[in-house]
Amino acid sequence: MAAGSDDIQALIALMARLPGLGPRSARRIVLQLITRRDSQMIQLAQLLDRVAAGARECLTCGNITDRDTCAICADPARATGEICVVQDVADLWALERGGAFRGRYHVLGGTLSALDEIGPEDLRIPDLLTRIEEDRTAEVILALPATVDGQTTAHYIADALADTAVAVTGLAQGVPIGGELDYLDDGTITAALRARRRI
Amino acid sequence: MAAGSDDIQALIALMARLPGLGPRSARRIVLQLITRRDSQMIQLAQLLDRVAAGARECLTCGNITDRDTCAICADPARATGEICVVQDVADLWALERGGAFRGRYHVLGGTLSALDEIGPEDLRIPDLLTRIEEDRTAEVILALPATVDGQTTAHYIADALADTAVAVTGLAQGVPIGGELDYLDDGTITAALRARRRI
Repeated sequence: MAAGSDDIQALIALMARLPGLGPRSARRIVLQLITRRDSQMIQLAQLLDRVAAGARECLTCGNITDRDTCAICADPARATGEICVVQDVADLWALERGGAFRGRYHVLGGTLSALDEIGPEDLRIPDLLTRIEEDRTAEVILALPATVDGQTTAHYIADALADTAVAVTGLAQGVPIGGELDYLDDGTITAALRARRRI
Repeated sequence: MAAGSDDIQALIALMARLPGLGPRSARRIVLQLITRRDSQMIQLAQLLDRVAAGARECLTCGNITDRDTCAICADPARATGEICVVQDVADLWALERGGAFRGRYHVLGGTLSALDEIGPEDLRIPDLLTRIEEDRTAEVILALPATVDGQTTAHYIADALADTAVAVTGLAQGVPIGGELDYLDDGTITAALRARRRI
C-alpha cells in the first residue's frame, strides 16, 4: 500500500471525484494538506462540517444561504421589482460578481429538458410564477444559458407570462468584451451583426 | 454577500489555496459539495478529520503513514538491502505506482539549497547515513530530481558514502517511453546519446 493508509487512499479517491480534479491533482492536494495540517487540513474539515450543517436553499429564490431567507432576498434595497431568472446558483454568483444587477434572483435549479424528462414542476418554475404575481414584479430578466434547453426554458416562461403586465427580457447576445472576432463562433458573430447598434 | 454565507466564502477561499485550484474551480467544487452533502461533503469532512489525526511520518523512512513504521518498512520482503532516496513523499508514491522497485525508501524532505539555506541537517540526510550503516545496506539508489539542487544533493550523498562499501547508483537519463525526439530538450537528447546502448 503505497499512499500511507486506507484513510489517505479514501481521501484521495474522494477528492479525485470533485469537479476539475483527478487522481494526480488529488494526491498533490492531500500531500499538501498533510504537511499543512494545522493551517489548512483541520480548518478545511471544520469549515466543511459547518457548511454541511448550515447550508440550505433560500425559501424564496433558491440561492444557497445559511438562513431561511438569503441576504439578497432579505435586503429591502433590492426590492426593485426586477427578478433575474438563472439556471443555478453558480450563475447567480457570477451575476453578483459583475455587480450590475441590483434586483433579486430566482434560481430554477436546471432547465427544461425533454430528453432528461425534466418538466416545469421539476424546476422552480411554478414558484416563480406565484412569486411574480404576489410581488407585483415589473420585469423578469431571463439570464438562461444560450443552449437549446436554456432557450426552451426561456420561451416557456415568456409564454406563461404573455397575458400579464410583466415585461420579459433576456440578456443581450453579441461579442464579449475583449473578444477577438477571429476566435468567435459564427452564431455569435451573426447575432452581434443582427443586433448592431448606432455608435 | 453573494456566495451564501461567511462560512461558504471562507471554505471557497481555503479551497482556492490548494495546489492546482483557483477561485473559480474552488467555487465549482464547493457548489457540488453542497448539492451532494451526504454522499461527498460529510464524508470528506470526516476523512480529513481522521487523516489529520492519524497521519504522521514513518520514523524510519519519512513516508506518510498512520503508524510509527510505514507498511513498506514493516514488510520483511522488502529488506532487499536497497534503499531508494527520494526528495519527497510524492516521488515515493510515483515509484510505488511503477511497481518496479521492491526495496525500501528514504524520504529526504527536500534537496540541499544554498539559496534557501537548506543544509544536510535540515533534511533527513544524517538519518540516512546512520541507517545505511546500521542496516548494512548494499545499494543506495539516488532517485533525486534532475535539477541543480537535486544533483548537488545526489553528489553530497555519494561523497559521504565514498569510503564505504555501499554501491551508489542514480536513475538512468534518456528518452522517456513514448517520447518524441522532436519535443525533447537538447540536454535530454545529449544525455540519451552519450548513454547509448547496443541493441
